[in-house]
Amino acid sequence: MADSEDIIFGRNPVIEAIRSGKEIDKILLLKSIRGEFEKEVRHACKDHDIPLQYVPGHKLDKLTRKNHQGIIAFSSIIQYQSLENLTPLLYEKGITPLLLILDGVSDVRNFGAIVRSAEVLGAHGIIIGEKNSARINADAMKTSAGALLRIPICREKSLSNSIQYLSTAGFSIFATDLNTDSYISDCDFSGPCAVVIGSEGEGVGKDLLNRSDQKFKIPQVGETDSLNVSVASGVILYEILKQRTGND
Amino acid sequence: MADSEDIIFGRNPVIEAIRSGKEIDKILLLKSIRGEFEKEVRHACKDHDIPLQYVPGHKLDKLTRKNHQGIIAFSSIIQYQSLENLTPLLYEKGITPLLLILDGVSDVRNFGAIVRSAEVLGAHGIIIGEKNSARINADAMKTSAGALLRIPICREKSLSNSIQYLSTAGFSIFATDLNTDSYISDCDFSGPCAVVIGSEGEGVGKDLLNRSDQKFKIPQVGETDSLNVSVASGVILYEILKQRTGND
Repeated sequence: MADSEDIIFGRNPVIEAIRSGKEIDKILLLKSIRGEFEKEVRHACKDHDIPLQYVPGHKLDKLTRKNHQGIIAFSSIIQYQSLENLTPLLYEKGITPLLLILDGVSDVRNFGAIVRSAEVLGAHGIIIGEKNSARINADAMKTSAGALLRIPICREKSLSNSIQYLSTAGFSIFATDLNTDSYISDCDFSGPCAVVIGSEGEGVGKDLLNRSDQKFKIPQVGETDSLNVSVASGVILYEILKQRTGND
Repeated sequence: MADSEDIIFGRNPVIEAIRSGKEIDKILLLKSIRGEFEKEVRHACKDHDIPLQYVPGHKLDKLTRKNHQGIIAFSSIIQYQSLENLTPLLYEKGITPLLLILDGVSDVRNFGAIVRSAEVLGAHGIIIGEKNSARINADAMKTSAGALLRIPICREKSLSNSIQYLSTAGFSIFATDLNTDSYISDCDFSGPCAVVIGSEGEGVGKDLLNRSDQKFKIPQVGETDSLNVSVASGVILYEILKQRTGND
């Protein structure tokens, strides 16, 4: 899966990569490593919110034939952006921002397809949580048809805080909810808005639902239980684009 | 991949399955088999439009440990319907029919997601060609969330003939086309209609495009090259449902 361009190995190179603030998706550390170095890595990962996994030697050996010294880092294939930087930037450009907030969309192909639709249909950024999000790897890039490089992705510690921040910044917050009576076409997406989309299994979490200004669902007539999450996202983005371009 | 419920093996069982009209997706025949039996299988497959593949022994041995006698059939997990039966049935029920025609959508997951959207958003059937279509297997069933069992699937020899037949039966034929200037919201889907959706790489074939009454595209504003085919299908079905339920 991993190719040599995605990985950083060796004690100094990995520690330096972390300290320099390079985007890292995950670090694998040989589980027999103890003492000062293990502690240093553990703390550095904690400071930089990087997931750390303790693995057996053969897992590392499979990733590189070179001398990895018991540690390998997967560098991220994209550069994350900060929501606090992105939002003022959009306003400055005179854009009426549209952001997607993905709550627990962990399937890589669904994630990639959503990123693709978002870029094609005019969203200005995608916000994901640090936990329960899809890995942003080569598969995600492929499914996104390269759109991952063309739309800002913000990885936030707390989606709940992100919503609070966006509300304060003048956004209306919408959330998908199969249990509501409101339909998507009842919503007014003409102002700055963020749409929270939940995972297929769980939907949008209760806390995020409570923080949203309006819940909506997509009309459906069949017996099958709702749409695939990437299809639902496409429909939502299409409806918003229609409203915003006066094509309704 | 295959599990024992999907396969039929042994000379008499397979021949009987074909003759009885059981739905079969594909037959694998040991390539060293010659003579009367090979001829019988070949003709039976031709008569019943079943793809026949000549394979080495180890391929068959991997599928079953029992005595396969050099032949294995994959039974279809769904019962195909005939377009000529389906159409009058829909009219008799007083339905204004909406059918999807999939031209070369060969990715199993995209196919499953389209079937799911079609059932959820109110289409009445899906037409696929015998060639270049996705295999209807357990993966397709899973991605469709079971919708494959709830919406008629017609597997037709010639999609071109199907379009001709539908035109005669009073359908308007629409086709997706990235090169047209018409947008989907310019189309009137209120009557009986069939929508031809092409593969991502190729789009709708020229012959089918020529036979369509109206071409359309989905609006897009980004730089990425178009939507994923299952997302595009969802958007199309949503727009049609909106028009038909007066929710426009």
